[in-house]
This record gives sequence, C-alpha cells and structure tokens, in this order.
Amino acid sequence: MLISDELWMTEAILEANKAARIGEVPIGAVVVYNDWIIGRGHNLRETTFDPLAHAEMIAMREASIFNQAWRLSGCTLYVTLEPCPMCAGALIQSRVDRVVYGARDPKAGCVHSLIPILNEQRFNHRVQVTEGILHEQCSALLTHFFKQLRANKKKNHIQGV
Amino acid sequence: MLISDELWMTEAILEANKAARIGEVPIGAVVVYNDWIIGRGHNLRETTFDPLAHAEMIAMREASIFNQAWRLSGCTLYVTLEPCPMCAGALIQSRVDRVVYGARDPKAGCVHSLIPILNEQRFNHRVQVTEGILHEQCSALLTHFFKQLRANKKKNHIQGV
Repeated sequence: MLISDELWMTEAILEANKAARIGEVPIGAVVVYNDWIIGRGHNLRETTFDPLAHAEMIAMREASIFNQAWRLSGCTLYVTLEPCPMCAGALIQSRVDRVVYGARDPKAGCVHSLIPILNEQRFNHRVQVTEGILHEQCSALLTHFFKQLRANKKKNHIQGV
Repeated sequence: MLISDELWMTEAILEANKAARIGEVPIGAVVVYNDWIIGRGHNLRETTFDPLAHAEMIAMREASIFNQAWRLSGCTLYVTLEPCPMCAGALIQSRVDRVVYGARDPKAGCVHSLIPILNEQRFNHRVQVTEGILHEQCSALLTHFFKQLRANKKKNHIQGV
C-alpha cells in the first residue's frame, strides 16, 4: 500500500457516489499516472444500455484518449469493487501497471474471488494488485444502495405501484 | 453447429478484412438476433488508441444500442478468433446466449485455450460455445497478415527506412 492509495480511492468513491445519485449500482474508478488523474468513470450500464459501461472501462477509455495511446503503462487503476472478468481482462489488454481495489466481490470478482485472472502467467502482461483500501467505505456504498433499493421496492409494493 | 453458422461467420470474416485493410490485426465479429445482424465490429485498437476496441466489444455495444437494452438475451456472437479474457467476460456481462468462434488463440484465448472463463459455474450467466466454424479461413487471415507485416518490416530494414 502507498500513502496516496487512500487519496485516490477517495476519488473513486466520489465517482461511485455519482452512479448512486442516478440509480446505478455505485461503483467508481480513476486512472492515475504520475500523480494525476487521467481517467475517471462510474457505472453507467442502465443509463447508457451498454453492458460494457463499467466504471473501470470508462476510466480506462478516458485515460487512453488522454494519452493518445492504448497502452496505459505506468498507470494505476483505483476501483471501489473487485473487477469482474471483463474488467480484469481489460486491465491486461491496456497494460495497466497496478490495480487497487476496495471491497471484494464474491459473486463476480475475478482478481481474488472467483477466477484469479491476473495470476495467469501465460498472458503477455502482469498487473500488480493491492486490495482492501478503504474497503469499509466501499462496501458500505453498496450495502446502503441495495438496502435502499429493497426498501423502495417494498414501499412501492405496499402502495401498489 | 447450425447450418447458418457458416453464413454468419462469413460476415465476421468480412469485418476482419476491414481491419486488415487499415493495418489492424484482422479480427471481426457480428451479433445475430432472430436471423438479423444487429451489431458488427472489427478490431480498431491502433486506429482509436482504445485498448477496449476489440471486434467483439464494438459489435456488442452496437447491438445494445440497437436493442436499447444492455441484455443481449437471445443473441449469438460470431467472431473469427477465440475471445480474450476481456471479451469472454463481456459475453457474460451482456448475457449473450451463444458464442461461435473460428480459430483458437493459444496466446490469449479464454474460452478453451488459457482459462475456460465461460465454464465457471458461479457466474450468474451461462454462454453456449461452438468453435471451429470456418477455422481455416479465420486462421489464414491472421497468418497472412503477420507474414505480410514481417515482410514489410524486412523490406523497410533493407531499405534503411
């Protein structure tokens, strides 16, 4: 863990909050290069109808456009939730140096939880991993969101909406 | 294998040829729903500086926009090369019913070659797989492209370019 990891994760949490405010599952990400954020993103799957619009993917695409290069060498991606198989694969494709995530995702996480994709030695790129940075805040975001969602559903059901 | 698999793979090959013509690694894909192509894509990584611009991703995004829904239920994705971990993960995320691919990718393929991502029973979606459709044409596309690339490099080296 680097001292600055918590700082950058706070920025990822800010992104996650943007998703929550528009009814999207609150997951946020930033891409950092030389102590600058060059890509930010929050989950936009429902809003854009795009199954690929995960926070990490949006942040990585923004960083690549900024860099005018598809290789994100020297970059670290901070994300509030453990990446899914698509996003773990995208970290390899984009040659990100390091990924830092907050909470584990036991249902779809593919860094530690289900398939340790980034441990596969035969890929042509290695990604360093740090987990658990601000994990309580990152977990709480999701717990609160789904609790609220259930409460709203219950309320609508009672009101017959 | 369905009788129409070869027909749709021919369309994916047409897409791959578009990539080759602009100097991109020739990989192409189409998304088919009810005997209609609703998404097409070819590799655009170098042209767009986007590490996520694989043929499959572009075709799936186009199909989602067409459907106005992130779920591609009932769809089949045809792609000339075995999907990488990112694209295999994207097939799960987008709830594609079936994937059909041409040639195996021993360096990065994540359907059969390196990690059988689509076999993971704990994901919340299953994708059916068919491989080997028009695999000779699909393989030949790549072999020819890389042979040509090496020849051009050699020529430029001799000419001192």
